[in-house]
Amino acid sequence: MSRTPAAQAPQRLAAIDLGSNSFHLLVANRLGDHLQVVAKQGEKVQLAAGLGDDDHLDEPAIQRALDCLARFAPFVEGIPADAMRVVGTNALRAAHNSRDFIERAEAVLGHEIEIIAGREEARLIYLGAAHALADIHGRRLIVDIGGGSTEFIIGERFEPEALESLHMGCVAYTRRFFPDGQITEKRFRQAELAALSELANIRRHYLALGWSDPIGSSGTIKAAASVIAAAGDSPEGTLTRQGLARLRRRLIKCKHLDRVEMAGLKADRARVFPAGVAILCAIFEAFELEHMRFADGALREGVLYDLIGRNTAEDPRLPALTGLTRRYGVDHRQATNVAASAASAFDQVCDAWQLGEMIRPFLLWAAELHEIGLAVSHSQFHRHGAYLLENADLPGFSRPEQQLLAFLVRAHRRKFALKELEALPPAYRDRAARLARLLRLAVVLNHSRPEHPPTTFQLQAEGEALLMMLPDALAEQSLLLTDLEQEIAYQRAAGFRLAVDPLTLEI
Amino acid sequence: MSRTPAAQAPQRLAAIDLGSNSFHLLVANRLGDHLQVVAKQGEKVQLAAGLGDDDHLDEPAIQRALDCLARFAPFVEGIPADAMRVVGTNALRAAHNSRDFIERAEAVLGHEIEIIAGREEARLIYLGAAHALADIHGRRLIVDIGGGSTEFIIGERFEPEALESLHMGCVAYTRRFFPDGQITEKRFRQAELAALSELANIRRHYLALGWSDPIGSSGTIKAAASVIAAAGDSPEGTLTRQGLARLRRRLIKCKHLDRVEMAGLKADRARVFPAGVAILCAIFEAFELEHMRFADGALREGVLYDLIGRNTAEDPRLPALTGLTRRYGVDHRQATNVAASAASAFDQVCDAWQLGEMIRPFLLWAAELHEIGLAVSHSQFHRHGAYLLENADLPGFSRPEQQLLAFLVRAHRRKFALKELEALPPAYRDRAARLARLLRLAVVLNHSRPEHPPTTFQLQAEGEALLMMLPDALAEQSLLLTDLEQEIAYQRAAGFRLAVDPLTLEI
Repeated sequence: MSRTPAAQAPQRLAAIDLGSNSFHLLVANRLGDHLQVVAKQGEKVQLAAGLGDDDHLDEPAIQRALDCLARFAPFVEGIPADAMRVVGTNALRAAHNSRDFIERAEAVLGHEIEIIAGREEARLIYLGAAHALADIHGRRLIVDIGGGSTEFIIGERFEPEALESLHMGCVAYTRRFFPDGQITEKRFRQAELAALSELANIRRHYLALGWSDPIGSSGTIKAAASVIAAAGDSPEGTLTRQGLARLRRRLIKCKHLDRVEMAGLKADRARVFPAGVAILCAIFEAFELEHMRFADGALREGVLYDLIGRNTAEDPRLPALTGLTRRYGVDHRQATNVAASAASAFDQVCDAWQLGEMIRPFLLWAAELHEIGLAVSHSQFHRHGAYLLENADLPGFSRPEQQLLAFLVRAHRRKFALKELEALPPAYRDRAARLARLLRLAVVLNHSRPEHPPTTFQLQAEGEALLMMLPDALAEQSLLLTDLEQEIAYQRAAGFRLAVDPLTLEI
Repeated sequence: MSRTPAAQAPQRLAAIDLGSNSFHLLVANRLGDHLQVVAKQGEKVQLAAGLGDDDHLDEPAIQRALDCLARFAPFVEGIPADAMRVVGTNALRAAHNSRDFIERAEAVLGHEIEIIAGREEARLIYLGAAHALADIHGRRLIVDIGGGSTEFIIGERFEPEALESLHMGCVAYTRRFFPDGQITEKRFRQAELAALSELANIRRHYLALGWSDPIGSSGTIKAAASVIAAAGDSPEGTLTRQGLARLRRRLIKCKHLDRVEMAGLKADRARVFPAGVAILCAIFEAFELEHMRFADGALREGVLYDLIGRNTAEDPRLPALTGLTRRYGVDHRQATNVAASAASAFDQVCDAWQLGEMIRPFLLWAAELHEIGLAVSHSQFHRHGAYLLENADLPGFSRPEQQLLAFLVRAHRRKFALKELEALPPAYRDRAARLARLLRLAVVLNHSRPEHPPTTFQLQAEGEALLMMLPDALAEQSLLLTDLEQEIAYQRAAGFRLAVDPLTLEI
């Protein structure tokens, strides 16, 4: 291992978010256009809990905040001012003594702190979320329930069309509606009504704009999704109206904030969870939502992307995938050849199999990525590739989409991966099996790594059965015939029929 | 994903080994100084089985060989002559009609074939093995039992000191000693005696040179190690004299080549396995061996390394590790800082803990590699790093050494990985736990990614307990104190005592 005396460090960027409930630190190394997160810290400081009726931060809250910043400080030591940003949100917007607090906090942190407006907060949240979401879902509504405020953004790709920040949050509402810790149906409803009253300011405008994909990106929503999934009421990462209604009843049954304990809920969120859920219920009610999915990517991510000027309208999935092929030294010619054969296979059966244009890129991406596992080892490289895709940070991909990509790479060679197929979300399973069978054929056709990809074969689908007809030039290649015989056996063992002319006629 | 119209392919290299038992194809892309294997094929052609008493290859054997080469041919199409080598070994050395065969084979393959001498074969085997082995074990004996010949090499690092090829092999001996398939004690012993008679030619010279590390690198030895491990007679990858004796008895009890079936043995090796084991038993007897370990890296790997001129005396482990840090974009400053703190910790307790200088590099390598998993994702990056190290091709590392590295990376943060510790080979377990505890401290000390690594702490070991004393400059850092408190709790939960001055005194 080389030991140069003066080790070069990559450029470091940092974002600190002084939220009303939690403080967050995010440090990333910049590698070209890509941010590699190297440190993450989060503490539930509950600044807003220290906001008395006189809107003054009390000393205990200030002390919690300063202690936290003292722990963050070493992470940002030496980072130049233009490579970091420290932003304060609602609690600091509201506090009359925030100027005093900021002076003390800047002394501890060694960096300037800015209090940002609700709309700026909403813009940055949207930027963070846009990097974490694919743009295939059209217009989306993004909701971020904070400790002191809740942001609502409607946008498409990287363009926000409506940005709003409302004065309601899980810490503030806990203080206001559950001051002695008692949870009753009446108080819960009072919290909801207060939220509905806030929402009335934007409801009509937002409903008129409309959206196709409601998304939540805060801790409250993450926790709600996790509790509902643990109760078996919906798949992980998705909230349904019914699941939420059931969660509401369970919370009221707890009777006291100190007794809120549920599978999937972290202890340090428990006390502010009922208020957060009340706000969430009001949002479902006001916007007539049936479901909402959780997505990572929040204010602090938006701050970092804003710092490096990454706010183009480009599909965020492409840089993520290109990053993978570059990092793992993919043989570009081979990847492109397999993709070309796969495209030919797809286009011949997409009508018969009703695959739809939306799913086509996944087959081509899987083709371009199927060899990334070679970077780890040739032995079992389909498994390594699937592991890398399953665990990678892939901005723009939903969890099920990422699982689909990983599955296709896992299933591209050797025995057909039936067990892994069963583990996919049901909505993807049938198409995943079909795409995997097409990818396998494309890989077999390019097994010898030819200069040009074979694309002149014919492929027909009848029900689940596939019939492949080889042109003379291919029908003479004994490697290909041996491989296809093996592939017929693999597919048969998995319950799929594959026939190859001239091969099957000989059998 | 970028789609340049003319996709650039990396330089491709190929080696084909026309062995007496199997034909092997290995295709690799050259990435700088590194070879990335992109295709591997092996077929049990059993060329030597077609060598009649008149030393003529019969037509069925020739046909099997040509069929196999027809399947290999597309893999090497378009590879220039100076980027590949096709080598024939003992069966072709022995066959009187090898010239006719080669003419037909070259026509099928489209490339020139050379028959290499036994010593050249031994030299290339050694080169392949040297890339797969660390040089920390001193002088080694490498044994490669082929279908028609067996090579013996003594060497150190990349320098072979003795190269021999003897006329004995598992296919030839199967024909000679088990012609009707019957396996008896008498025939088994006859095979051993024939091998001992061959070995008498080199025995004295080799014993005089001596070695500290006997290694086997062929299919016979791999299969024997695998069967013995499946029977629970020795750890995976290692053959012991007793395990081998028991395997010999089991084989004789099978009574017929057609009934040789054992856990760990592939069906297509079964028929030539008894003869291979007889040769192996004779080698243990002649060289008075107690054990032998299996290592990958054979003739075909040697051919590729020879092609790119990689035969320096450099420790093969360093390029492997540097390759990893480069591929995964490790933050070099941080890695070097953690290594510096780890080195300071190691040097302070190595006597008390009797760690020994041999193990020191593993701690430093783990420190330099501990962040490679960040390339996959910040979430759970210690697990990703361990996965990459566990599955990587790491030339020069034995399997247990690689497991140790993976474990240290796995265990460097969060809850102490006790389950993974238990999965390590027993000989490494105690030291692995100690190294992991030192690495964890080094990581905590550098958590905030400082410019210079803290190395001025004091560390003492008493039994398994560790006492750390912080100098004033460190004792003031609240992040470090919080982290160390957490670390004390993690180590306590794993049954280890860690005390930190000033921290513990405050509790």
